[in-house]
Amino acid sequence: MIVLFTDFGLAGPYTGQVKAVLCRLAPGVPVIDLFADAPSRDPRPAAYLLAAYAAWFPAGTVFLAVVDPGVGGARPAVALEADGRWFVGPGNGLMEIVQRRAARARLLEITWRPPSLSASFHGRDLFAPIAARLAKGEAIEADARPAGDGRRPDWPDDLAEIVYIDHYGNAMTGLRAERLPAEAWLVAAGRRVPPGVTFGAVAPGSPFWYRNSNGLAEIAVNMGRADQALGLSIGVPVGVET
Amino acid sequence: MIVLFTDFGLAGPYTGQVKAVLCRLAPGVPVIDLFADAPSRDPRPAAYLLAAYAAWFPAGTVFLAVVDPGVGGARPAVALEADGRWFVGPGNGLMEIVQRRAARARLLEITWRPPSLSASFHGRDLFAPIAARLAKGEAIEADARPAGDGRRPDWPDDLAEIVYIDHYGNAMTGLRAERLPAEAWLVAAGRRVPPGVTFGAVAPGSPFWYRNSNGLAEIAVNMGRADQALGLSIGVPVGVET
Amino acid sequence: MIVLFTDFGLAGPYTGQVKAVLCRLAPGVPVIDLFADAPSRDPRPAAYLLAAYAAWFPAGTVFLAVVDPGVGGARPAVALEADGRWFVGPGNGLMEIVQRRAARARLLEITWRPPSLSASFHGRDLFAPIAARLAKGEAIEADARPAGDGRRPDWPDDLAEIVYIDHYGNAMTGLRAERLPAEAWLVAAGRRVPPGVTFGAVAPGSPFWYRNSNGLAEIAVNMGRADQALGLSIGVPVGVET
Repeated sequence: MIVLFTDFGLAGPYTGQVKAVLCRLAPGVPVIDLFADAPSRDPRPAAYLLAAYAAWFPAGTVFLAVVDPGVGGARPAVALEADGRWFVGPGNGLMEIVQRRAARARLLEITWRPPSLSASFHGRDLFAPIAARLAKGEAIEADARPAGDGRRPDWPDDLAEIVYIDHYGNAMTGLRAERLPAEAWLVAAGRRVPPGVTFGAVAPGSPFWYRNSNGLAEIAVNMGRADQALGLSIGVPVGVET
Repeated sequence: MIVLFTDFGLAGPYTGQVKAVLCRLAPGVPVIDLFADAPSRDPRPAAYLLAAYAAWFPAGTVFLAVVDPGVGGARPAVALEADGRWFVGPGNGLMEIVQRRAARARLLEITWRPPSLSASFHGRDLFAPIAARLAKGEAIEADARPAGDGRRPDWPDDLAEIVYIDHYGNAMTGLRAERLPAEAWLVAAGRRVPPGVTFGAVAPGSPFWYRNSNGLAEIAVNMGRADQALGLSIGVPVGVET
Repeated sequence: MIVLFTDFGLAGPYTGQVKAVLCRLAPGVPVIDLFADAPSRDPRPAAYLLAAYAAWFPAGTVFLAVVDPGVGGARPAVALEADGRWFVGPGNGLMEIVQRRAARARLLEITWRPPSLSASFHGRDLFAPIAARLAKGEAIEADARPAGDGRRPDWPDDLAEIVYIDHYGNAMTGLRAERLPAEAWLVAAGRRVPPGVTFGAVAPGSPFWYRNSNGLAEIAVNMGRADQALGLSIGVPVGVET
């Protein structure tokens, strides 16, 4: 299975062209849209989101992970094998948290280049063909070498910021809930937010935080939009009161 | 075929994870996104939309229908067989209108629970696996019992409200057009709206209502957005003048 | 492969029903969403977008191309064969630029009508069944005749206007970049925009234009939204300073 994690959007031409490449080069391999609205052109919050959601998928999954503001510039193209999953995309930190949390990982720099490479759409021209080959079980070692770059050792293990606003206005943090005391309160945009378990256990309109279905601490408002009610957006710092 | 009717959105992680489950448990079964923007957390208008659109699909179709504000609470999980179609989702009224209009129907409460059930994402953890089994033609009786709850006898047969705003700004009502006199006018947000047949038959900018391609009475504006022009949103009452 | 080029949106019921028809009539044929947000109800800018993006796909591809404000009216239904690709949709100019740029083309008027044809959704009822048959390699000549209409000889070969705003706020023009001097400046909404090559080569916040990955001249702002920064929307005229 190939899983797409990008900031490409779905309605326009980017995801569709990537899928056309995958369909041609890896026919019959299912392609799943995981995120098409990952933090736009911002690999740091995206890295925590990718790590949290990739862990839910089984070994053998190939992730095409592209949040790539430096496309066409000097950042390397990389492929990361981490605990049996592959991640293909730009070497700009996007895979940093996946790699750091993996028991076994190796990072390769992709040296292969397609006959025709656009300056602005490596997702289609470079990363998708590599992902297709990995999904078919083909080796890419001949087209890659151990990567010496692309790591971000200065990034924290958990990110105390909002990293994603979902379709309902819920605000995901880059904090793993299992690392927080169950009774901790979160503080964001000047508001203290108590813990909760389910939406129905909280009064309509009340904010709470909970462990979401992929393990992140997430701030929500029952029957409301937390982003609007609390003034939350990607990058807003989150404090923990224990 | 498995058809998704949800308020999950497409760009974020919810629909993708549901599809990953379906792909793993029912490989090769086509999955169609019918609505990913059903009325958010509002099963009553969604019930009329689901009934109108499900009728277009052939017998044998399995609908994964999830608009579920009470997820993690006391509402039952249900599977409805209605005129040969299956509907899997929360027992919160979402299947009420489908069931009421069916010639033959039976409502089951799903008693099976997965080894790991998140508090907030039963679409992925509970409903998708059941839908996959039904799509493969497997019985679920062993994991279900006749449902004693989940009905909404007090809901009307047709809902005289706006139930959906589409991509163009057209406003669908919960009224079946075939139940209205062809020459009736609709009244919504203080505006009287005459009947029309096609967009091209009406002056640009003029509102009209017509029988949409799935049988609902729908208010539109030729070359404009009815929602903005008339101030329409989900829940706005609709009157009928005959 | 069947490629969808429409203004239907993805989240609502239109694209899903089209795919359900294609899945039933052409099972196993991959369906790709290229554009679901083509210029809404505006076939003229859409025609330049379609021509630029269709050229990337191999011969044998079938495009279901529907931007159809006149649905249910007098405009013909057409199928265009152009350099080995098929295009099915309304004869309202949407295929004009594809046809004009093709080395070999023939335009057919579709005379076949389905048993049940809605007034407002020919994409589902009429165009999708024809596209399915073409994708299976079946002839449609028996259901069509040479088209005498549907051309737009007065439209220019390149359109000096904004034809699309993408997910990042980049503004595509209807101008092929290869026809512009590399050092030309573009002028739009009163702003002069210099040429650039990649995003990273330009200061954050600075506008530039470049040849996009499908050959159109596109106006962008590094790490910003060109539509908002420059006041661009579909239809805004674009000048060329050489």
